[in-house]
Amino acid sequence: MNANKIISKVIKEKGRIRTVFFIGCGGSMIDLYPANYMLNAEASDISSYIYTSREFVLSLPKRLGNDSLVIVCSHSGNTPESVEAAHAAKEAGAYVITITHNKDSKCTAPEFVSWVYPWGDDVKTEYVPVGISLLLAAELIEAQEGFAKHEALIKAIDQIDGVIGKARLKVNEELSNVFANSCKENPFFYVLGSGSAFSQTYGFVICSMMEMQWQNCCHIHSGEYFHGPFEVTENGLLYVIQMSSGKTREMDERALAFLRGHTDRLIVIDALEYGMDSIDSSVREYLDSSLFYAINCELRAARGKLFNHPVETRRYMDIEKY
Amino acid sequence: MNANKIISKVIKEKGRIRTVFFIGCGGSMIDLYPANYMLNAEASDISSYIYTSREFVLSLPKRLGNDSLVIVCSHSGNTPESVEAAHAAKEAGAYVITITHNKDSKCTAPEFVSWVYPWGDDVKTEYVPVGISLLLAAELIEAQEGFAKHEALIKAIDQIDGVIGKARLKVNEELSNVFANSCKENPFFYVLGSGSAFSQTYGFVICSMMEMQWQNCCHIHSGEYFHGPFEVTENGLLYVIQMSSGKTREMDERALAFLRGHTDRLIVIDALEYGMDSIDSSVREYLDSSLFYAINCELRAARGKLFNHPVETRRYMDIEKY
Repeated sequence: MNANKIISKVIKEKGRIRTVFFIGCGGSMIDLYPANYMLNAEASDISSYIYTSREFVLSLPKRLGNDSLVIVCSHSGNTPESVEAAHAAKEAGAYVITITHNKDSKCTAPEFVSWVYPWGDDVKTEYVPVGISLLLAAELIEAQEGFAKHEALIKAIDQIDGVIGKARLKVNEELSNVFANSCKENPFFYVLGSGSAFSQTYGFVICSMMEMQWQNCCHIHSGEYFHGPFEVTENGLLYVIQMSSGKTREMDERALAFLRGHTDRLIVIDALEYGMDSIDSSVREYLDSSLFYAINCELRAARGKLFNHPVETRRYMDIEKY
Repeated sequence: MNANKIISKVIKEKGRIRTVFFIGCGGSMIDLYPANYMLNAEASDISSYIYTSREFVLSLPKRLGNDSLVIVCSHSGNTPESVEAAHAAKEAGAYVITITHNKDSKCTAPEFVSWVYPWGDDVKTEYVPVGISLLLAAELIEAQEGFAKHEALIKAIDQIDGVIGKARLKVNEELSNVFANSCKENPFFYVLGSGSAFSQTYGFVICSMMEMQWQNCCHIHSGEYFHGPFEVTENGLLYVIQMSSGKTREMDERALAFLRGHTDRLIVIDALEYGMDSIDSSVREYLDSSLFYAINCELRAARGKLFNHPVETRRYMDIEKY
């Protein structure tokens, strides 16, 4: 599949796209977050939204219609809420692209344009949902109104894999054991982040920790931290902070400065120290989430090893009926 | 102030409004959430967004401009991030309405149209930010494209105060002590909710608990619960679930059914049992947040009393420099 060709088809069939809806559940929704974030920051004449699938269906936006592009992501291709959302969008007249790992799934039904992606540690970012959705968003902006950062973004998506490769080594040399051991002493901790990387703040909490490690924790936006959450900060309470490399970084820096003075348990993961300084500063904020995802994977694996709790272990998901 | 008159002025000056941005920090952003939610569900030709103030300024949306209405809420009227956001929006050409409790604040500077609201337990919902923003949104939809639920919403905003009055008594009779005592045994718990009420799921966590009670907890969307977070559920772990009365309720019901079988510590707050059944079902989901806010206030007060931790106590906010 090719983002440029798909967007050409979309525009040929629909004319101008007025609204994009990114739809998924949990990790799949998280993967679409940077594309939604970028569209809203960079497009002057395209609205973009992101919804967890079931809320989208139950509270179907009135502007959803013939001039909408709906991008649904489901790794299994059969997530019931996401399949239902894709059908609801189709019925409303939208152009529906499904992104899935499963070529023989409900998401690859003929009524959808399906992008089937490979999966594994060595698959390049441009071929997985976070990259695919960024590319679709970039091509849409470029096609409809021109996107001055188009080339920079494509280059950044290509470069991020090199950054990630080195970051994996560095995090395992310097941080993974520190983090895993911290979990022994901290039955609960907070994770902070901002910007498009906030998707992986949330993702670290709900996927890597809660789902894969049964570890209690909570996500807080670095900018929101000072409007309530910081009152709970004190020595003995662990904070993990993801420092973005882009425009929202100063929120992370402000939170970090406060945390340094108010807790003795702090883990800092700075995207700039993990190689993001090598990416064009005009677009790197949209790739921070890919870096943090890779780092999150290493951290959860290290915790899994120390706790003898493999990251594949589930007690409810796809085991019980719910 | 009068929402209908303000929106008439907005349209007279700007012509058609294409995009609304709701901007605030913490509790003030939370108050604007139902209006943003309603606009996106009910308007066919108005886009609406909500941002924490600093992220809005740092990642200023390209579509912000002359045809934008920016509604900024700051209780003190001097929240630096929100004041900065109001100025950034004004510079971008938007019509800026500020909603504040402080008539002599930076938010009431002459370049903004300011709505100064009273505050206190007995102020009606239509006069406080959550109601004001809903009314502004309703008037905007009505003026630009017609809003079939306009009258029902106005009536519901009027009725909700009666529901809240009774709910306060009921929660203190039945739940406040149970909740406060639960906090003694649970240094950490989860709060679930959905729809426009999710604003008060988040609000209960970051304002009522973290800020006002130094209580660790975490907010989870009822629909997202099954896509990661539920794996952490087990006996001995406390969950508080806010059951909405509107279209997203079935996500809450699904989460509740699972919780009943997987934890022995569960507190259910059902909007329908607190009087929301008396409100028109086509609009009541937009008022659930007002009900939950009132309940949250009673719950935190009860906890404050039991823990001898008054809800006004702060150790950092407006005390330290940050």
